[in-house]
Amino acid sequence: MLDSLFFPKTVAVIGASEKHGSLGYHVMQNNIHLKNELYPVHPRYETVLGLKAYKSVLDIPEDIDVAISVVGPDNTLQVTQESASANVKFLIIVTSRFGEAARFKEGKILEQKIAAIAQKSGTRVVGPNCIGILNLPYLNSTFVPEYSPFLLEGLPIPSKGNINIISESGSVSGLLTAWLTEQGLGLNKLVNYGNGIDLVSTDFMEYFQNDSDCDIVGVYVEGIRNGRKFIEAAKKLNEKKPLIILKPGSELASKAAQSHTGSVATNEAIFGAALKQVHVQRAQTYGEFCSAVKTHSMISDKYLRRDHFFCAGITNAGGLKVLLAESLRQHNIPESALSEFSPELVEELEKILPSNVTVTNPLDIIGDASSETYSKVMEQLLRQGTIDCLLSIPTFEPASLREELVKDTARLMLKYGKPIIIASVGGELARIIRDKFQKVYVLNFEKPEDLAFAYQILRERHQFLSTLPSGS
Amino acid sequence: MLDSLFFPKTVAVIGASEKHGSLGYHVMQNNIHLKNELYPVHPRYETVLGLKAYKSVLDIPEDIDVAISVVGPDNTLQVTQESASANVKFLIIVTSRFGEAARFKEGKILEQKIAAIAQKSGTRVVGPNCIGILNLPYLNSTFVPEYSPFLLEGLPIPSKGNINIISESGSVSGLLTAWLTEQGLGLNKLVNYGNGIDLVSTDFMEYFQNDSDCDIVGVYVEGIRNGRKFIEAAKKLNEKKPLIILKPGSELASKAAQSHTGSVATNEAIFGAALKQVHVQRAQTYGEFCSAVKTHSMISDKYLRRDHFFCAGITNAGGLKVLLAESLRQHNIPESALSEFSPELVEELEKILPSNVTVTNPLDIIGDASSETYSKVMEQLLRQGTIDCLLSIPTFEPASLREELVKDTARLMLKYGKPIIIASVGGELARIIRDKFQKVYVLNFEKPEDLAFAYQILRERHQFLSTLPSGS
Repeated sequence: MLDSLFFPKTVAVIGASEKHGSLGYHVMQNNIHLKNELYPVHPRYETVLGLKAYKSVLDIPEDIDVAISVVGPDNTLQVTQESASANVKFLIIVTSRFGEAARFKEGKILEQKIAAIAQKSGTRVVGPNCIGILNLPYLNSTFVPEYSPFLLEGLPIPSKGNINIISESGSVSGLLTAWLTEQGLGLNKLVNYGNGIDLVSTDFMEYFQNDSDCDIVGVYVEGIRNGRKFIEAAKKLNEKKPLIILKPGSELASKAAQSHTGSVATNEAIFGAALKQVHVQRAQTYGEFCSAVKTHSMISDKYLRRDHFFCAGITNAGGLKVLLAESLRQHNIPESALSEFSPELVEELEKILPSNVTVTNPLDIIGDASSETYSKVMEQLLRQGTIDCLLSIPTFEPASLREELVKDTARLMLKYGKPIIIASVGGELARIIRDKFQKVYVLNFEKPEDLAFAYQILRERHQFLSTLPSGS
Repeated sequence: MLDSLFFPKTVAVIGASEKHGSLGYHVMQNNIHLKNELYPVHPRYETVLGLKAYKSVLDIPEDIDVAISVVGPDNTLQVTQESASANVKFLIIVTSRFGEAARFKEGKILEQKIAAIAQKSGTRVVGPNCIGILNLPYLNSTFVPEYSPFLLEGLPIPSKGNINIISESGSVSGLLTAWLTEQGLGLNKLVNYGNGIDLVSTDFMEYFQNDSDCDIVGVYVEGIRNGRKFIEAAKKLNEKKPLIILKPGSELASKAAQSHTGSVATNEAIFGAALKQVHVQRAQTYGEFCSAVKTHSMISDKYLRRDHFFCAGITNAGGLKVLLAESLRQHNIPESALSEFSPELVEELEKILPSNVTVTNPLDIIGDASSETYSKVMEQLLRQGTIDCLLSIPTFEPASLREELVKDTARLMLKYGKPIIIASVGGELARIIRDKFQKVYVLNFEKPEDLAFAYQILRERHQFLSTLPSGS
């Protein structure tokens, strides 16, 4: 169990420092609110940032749940030995220049020695070459400084939310965090295990099966050592909550990964087929990964527990109706997934809509439609038993739509318990509108094809959920 | 020749009005700077916005190059007749409720009558159901109001630039305009011909062959009447400047198009094959279309007139190196397109870079690299005869990179005459950095896969250009 790693009672920072810009300074600063549970370790300092410092982790009078080490690679072996002797439960080795650095043969050997000590003692290791764990406010082992040269008001950290991220790459985890913040999405726990000489993605996937704080897990992984165990953990986790995996699989990517985290290639064909067999979603690109994470974090599984999952498209822009239809094909969504409009529905809609609107699915209610009309039509559609999801592309560029539509969309989604997904296409104004939709928690994207992608992954999740025993 | 359409000496607005919110008001306002060359037409007004009004286009004492009609569909036939009698060169019919509105059989018949009159008289028609032509400051037949409820400082219009857009859809053309503005890209001419009963995309593609003001043409088209003529015009235009076509091709999209602009489906397989044969780029989605337009507008053909077009990737984030490599595969770019690093180059780079960097292509110079190091490495790469294009993913999230890198990138691109394409991945900060790259005119994107896409289309253009006689 990794409880003590994510919710430690005591944290030591080995290599703690008051030197601005140093790793030991930033890691201390990032956990300074832990106060008396935070123990700086440094051979030469009496205090660090006002806290009593210890020469070694062995000198700390308390049992240590998590020790974060930022000392150089040469000193890391000793730190590991001391941590093991002190019965530290988890050692996060932030330091790099180990197995990932091909020009140092010693790096690989050092890693093996550290792993051996850890294995013998029971101290579990995260890293090396990682930023470790971010589980605010309990632990922040990252060395990301509070201030960046561009955002003087401080580096934005996402609000606490329902997404867990596991990433082999430190930079990817940092960029995902920034992305979550910008999107207004909430992060629950972030894990970056770098070279992963002990704890790896599989361990965290196992732990997150019983993590009731998160609704969705996204995994970025470059290499997998025990494929069978990984797939088993992925399968079990995915049965509880959506799991999305981004794993580069090309030969070129594998070569690139080797010099990044020292990862060894898996058999791509076998891995891909195995994931498919257990219905785990695999993103092809960084963008798809982000879109899938966003979709599942905002549309929970409870929206997908239905007999079918037909959609209807609605827009006030003719061209976007056509492009939405085309996007569905590109995502291999059959025409039969679009709800067929009954003659009664067509009649109802024709009553609401001006006579130059042709009622089809997807439906274009034409540029001069008012917000009221847009809302009324959405409600008519949501009332249908054969419509389970709306793909909506409201364009505010002709001035006839007003902001009410944003709130109406949220209200209708809650009232009918059916997902409404928005694409707000265009420029600056479209971005402002997207932010407004985000504020009322309506899933929102930039382009018609994003809607098709989101619908596709929800559709796949719906199909998968329907194979599980109900209530699971 | 369409010179008088894009650069009219005299413009009449039929249905001109002072009523705020009416089409006739906005079209007048949008062209009010033309002053004495602008002629409002309305049966009941003496003046409109301070200009003398005429009862009919027949009463105007000058020859009219362009008449813009916004009167209702029932009055449009008479307007067409009068325009024909007055020898109006071009009649832009903004009004909708014609062939696109399936519930009006009369709409289709009316269209045919209008087309017949036009054909007989020599008056050429744009529309109906369109916003027409935007060629600032010469003509703006659009009815897009100056103010939107969300952007009180006025609706943004892109600066004058090198991109021509032809769009069958009015909404798509409006959204593209907004997008260009947000991206800091420049629009030269915009055409939206709606139902296209006379002038269609083919005519505009022919005209733009000799338009020295534009460097690239983007076409959004739903239906094509004369496929052979379209392909021929596309071929000729594409030989002069990059042409990108977005045409939905699925059955569902065709159905949707029919109720939008009344377009009839083309034979998808034949159309696709024909475009390919003449090497015209076809975007699959709205997003791809935008990316391709942006790429070609910022990387001119002169950068592609080289013997080969090998690339090198550079980043300071290991995960992004791996994802970039993976993205290349997804766009079917062979490993051989990545320049092979000579032993001399590896040695040079190892001198510049810290010893834990593994020199490969793509290259990760590691998170703590400074801007100076990043620039030095870029210059080393650009010096190589075997590197023709850089794919760069600089991450400013670790605070070691500074803004100088933005200017250095622009400087190096100009110095070596080789494209450098940027992906700035992450959140808010990444967006700020992208804007900075845009300001110094460096092609910039959001995601690693966008780089692969941009490189792919430049690569295809390079291959195509090498088949043309030099100097063409």
